[in-house]
Formats: sequence, structure tokens, C-alpha cells
Amino acid sequence: MKETLSIVKIGGNVIDNETLLKSFIHEFSKIKGLKILVHGGGKLATEISSSMGVIPEMIEGRRITNAATLEIVTMVYAGLINKRIVALLQSNNCNAIGLSGADANILPASKRDVGSIDYGFVGDINQSELNNNNLKVLLQNGFVPVIAPITHDTKGQLLNTNADTIASCLGVSLSDTFRVKLYYCFELKGVLQDIKNENSSIELITPEIFLQLKASQTISKGMIPKITNALEAIKNGVNCVYIGHVNYLNKMMADDVNAGTKITVI
Amino acid sequence: MKETLSIVKIGGNVIDNETLLKSFIHEFSKIKGLKILVHGGGKLATEISSSMGVIPEMIEGRRITNAATLEIVTMVYAGLINKRIVALLQSNNCNAIGLSGADANILPASKRDVGSIDYGFVGDINQSELNNNNLKVLLQNGFVPVIAPITHDTKGQLLNTNADTIASCLGVSLSDTFRVKLYYCFELKGVLQDIKNENSSIELITPEIFLQLKASQTISKGMIPKITNALEAIKNGVNCVYIGHVNYLNKMMADDVNAGTKITVI
Repeated sequence: MKETLSIVKIGGNVIDNETLLKSFIHEFSKIKGLKILVHGGGKLATEISSSMGVIPEMIEGRRITNAATLEIVTMVYAGLINKRIVALLQSNNCNAIGLSGADANILPASKRDVGSIDYGFVGDINQSELNNNNLKVLLQNGFVPVIAPITHDTKGQLLNTNADTIASCLGVSLSDTFRVKLYYCFELKGVLQDIKNENSSIELITPEIFLQLKASQTISKGMIPKITNALEAIKNGVNCVYIGHVNYLNKMMADDVNAGTKITVI
Repeated sequence: MKETLSIVKIGGNVIDNETLLKSFIHEFSKIKGLKILVHGGGKLATEISSSMGVIPEMIEGRRITNAATLEIVTMVYAGLINKRIVALLQSNNCNAIGLSGADANILPASKRDVGSIDYGFVGDINQSELNNNNLKVLLQNGFVPVIAPITHDTKGQLLNTNADTIASCLGVSLSDTFRVKLYYCFELKGVLQDIKNENSSIELITPEIFLQLKASQTISKGMIPKITNALEAIKNGVNCVYIGHVNYLNKMMADDVNAGTKITVI
């Protein structure tokens, strides 16, 4: 049987909240076995951006990564946030090694084609080109990769990439060798049945249940792509995906039915 | 015989000059055998600092790393500069992996004691605690570490540390396993006999020659600590140290007497 690899993704709300982040780091450090942490950005980039007088560029409600924004997200995500997390993990005896997608070429990507919107320096990951070997060498030598949401085009250009996508692409890619469990941790208790009730977390989502939830418009619009991606990752090799509160990571790992939403095809 | 390890340090003037940096990256990529790149900061941190309205704090002419400055140097050194260099090296088929001293715990340090001056978040490296093993695992698996001048106190606090010191501490530490050659690359052709003549580079400095140069006040004040540190590194195991122009790296590596200043005890 394949060895289990836990890939945990934390979002901006966890990073922005120091108490939440520190308690998460403590729990993450205790996870047994192979593990990877993928982190998002948080408000820090926006704050630093505005203190530098760089105004976020938006087109049709979508954020554009122009050259100035790329510099800022590289600094903040791969520098400040990544190194803070690594230093905290090291202080918890977890042998963290912080990486962007350029480091060890772990996340080669292509600059998104200019269609109706020019997103700027945004990278779409080339799933088939992911360099598993380097990540595997790191994992098998006891390192815990901590990955910032920055990729590169392998020609010297850094790119901005969504952290959720990074987590699922890595999960799919590494499922050739490992039994991959993917955990999306944020500030809610799971996928909610009723957005106004934080305790209405759905226990289990299968493709069939997902169809019903969509048909009955039970889940919020923002959740649909997350669940679609999760099911896609499972179809492509990931063992299962959990979505839940960062404080319930251990419980999700123990398959506690009261913690988070489990997404699976079974 | 021990395998040779080349440790190359580039200073701020190389980083600030895009043409110089790109040609250096190209040359560095071609170096055969095990290698490490250590980089300094450059003007970028000062520029970003001033664009954010953070005024550099100076006491008795010395720069102080207060909390705001530490955030900026972490972002700029370990984020922007480090990832730019890594992406460029990767585009030259060099399997670079960018690291701060917190990553894989490669540079544990202690916050400098407050004496007559409180330097703030400045780290002095604990030479005896350097974690050789993690760096060796990376080197022996074909990775090329690219190290930013940020360390950590192993209790979660990042610290600002001089890049020259990092290069020599790593050199000494790794000399237990490798034949370490240390290259300090900057914008001058070497240690100059006459500061006004850029072609007056001194070919060889031994401890005896160094004493004569100091006695005759031939070398500039700023060079004295650099050479003292180089001789100290050699006394503690480093094979030899070169100081020279970044464009002459290959020539220094080929022991060309017309390139750079060679510092040795022989």
C-alpha cells in the first residue's frame, strides 16, 4: 500500500489571524508522516500594496497581476509569509523548507493567455510537467515543504497562481507515489448547508450529493468551483479531500464525522 | 580527497545591476560540481522601505534592524531577490532552491546582545550549531542552494544577518566534508593596492602580506575586516578565498593570476 501524504492548504483568513495561525502551526507540526503545507496570501499583500501606493488593478471585478503587483505578491507570499511560517514550524521541531514554484522547479506554469481579460502575470500550472522527483526527494529526506502561491514559466518569469489550485495539482501529481489526502482549512466548519448557520456543515459530498446540492441551490456559488476541483482531483488520483475549520484539522484527519466536509467518490 | 564545493557570494551592486546579474547567473550556472550561492541585499530594500514610508533607523552611523525593517528585508531578500535569482538560474538549467536561514534550519542564530548599541533584529550565527546535514542532503541530491541573508533564532524569530558572514560561516562548517573554495564577487577587480586605480588589484594575500599591507596602510579600511574574516575562515578549514569582479568568476575559478585577489595561508 502507498504511504500516506497529507497536503494541507491554509487560506488568507488563517494567515491574517496570528492566534489562529500559531495554533494551526502547532497542530500541523504534530501530524505524523509525510506532509506538505500550501499557503495563500491574505490581507498583508493588499496592506503593503496600499502603503506603497500601488493601487490594485481590477477588470470586470477580477484582480489583475500587473508588474508592480507581481513584485508585491512575490515579496509578501514567498518572502514574509512563507518565512514566518517556516520559522514558526522550525520552532515547533518541524523541519520546514519554504519554497516558491521556481525553487527546485516544483511548479512550472504558463502565463495565462490574453483572452477577453488580460490577467497579467498569472500562471496556469502545467500538470503534466510537474517535477515530482524534486519534491519526492525533499519529502523522503524528512523535509516538510511549505509552498507559497508563486509559480514560474521556466524562462525566468515568476507568476502568481491560486493556492487552492496548487494544492490540488500537487495532490494529483504526487498520487502516482503516495496515498494523497488533501485538506482545505479555512475559517468555516465545512461546506455549509445554510450559509447563515455556521454549524450546518455538510458531512459528506459525493458526486451524486453534489448534483443534488447544486440543483437545490443549497450551497453558495463560491463553493461550487472548490467542490468541482476537489472531485476532479479525486477523479485524477487523490484519495480524498476535506474542507473544514483550521482548528479541526486533527479531527478531520481522524475521520471524525463531526469535523469538516469529506469529499469522496465512494 | 574531498569533493570541491564552491561557495559564491554576490553583493548588492551585482544585484542592483540587471545586466551584471544576468551575466553572472549565466556563468554561475555553468560551474561544474557542488555549489552554493549566497546573495546580499542591494538598494531594493532601501527603495521599498522609503516607498512604504519606513525611515531607516541609524544609531552612531550604524543601521538598526527594527521590526518594520526586518519585515522589509525578509520580503525583499528572501522573497523578491531570492526568487528572481532562483527563477533565472532555473531558466539556465541550474536546479536552484532558494533558502533563508530558517528553511531546513540551515542558519540558526542568536539575536545580538544589546550592548552600547541595540542593533535590533540582527542575528549572529552560532557556528557550532550550523545544521550541515540538511544542506549536505540538498547538495548531494543535486540541488543548488541560493541563500538569502536572513537567519532565525530557532524560536520563531527571523533575524537579519550579513551575507559575507553567512558565506564564511557556511564555508567553515562545510569544510568538514568538502574542499571549500569561497568566492566574494563584487564590482571591483579585487583588493586594490591603490583605491583610485581599478587595475591595481593585489594578486595574492597571505597572513604575512596582510600584515605588510596593513602596516603600510595600502589597503582601505573597509577591506580589512573582509580579509581578516577570509584568513580566519581559512584557518578554520576553508581551502582558499577569492575576492574579485563578478565578471571574472570563471577566471578566478581557473586560478588565473590576472583575476581577483587570492587569499591563502600558503
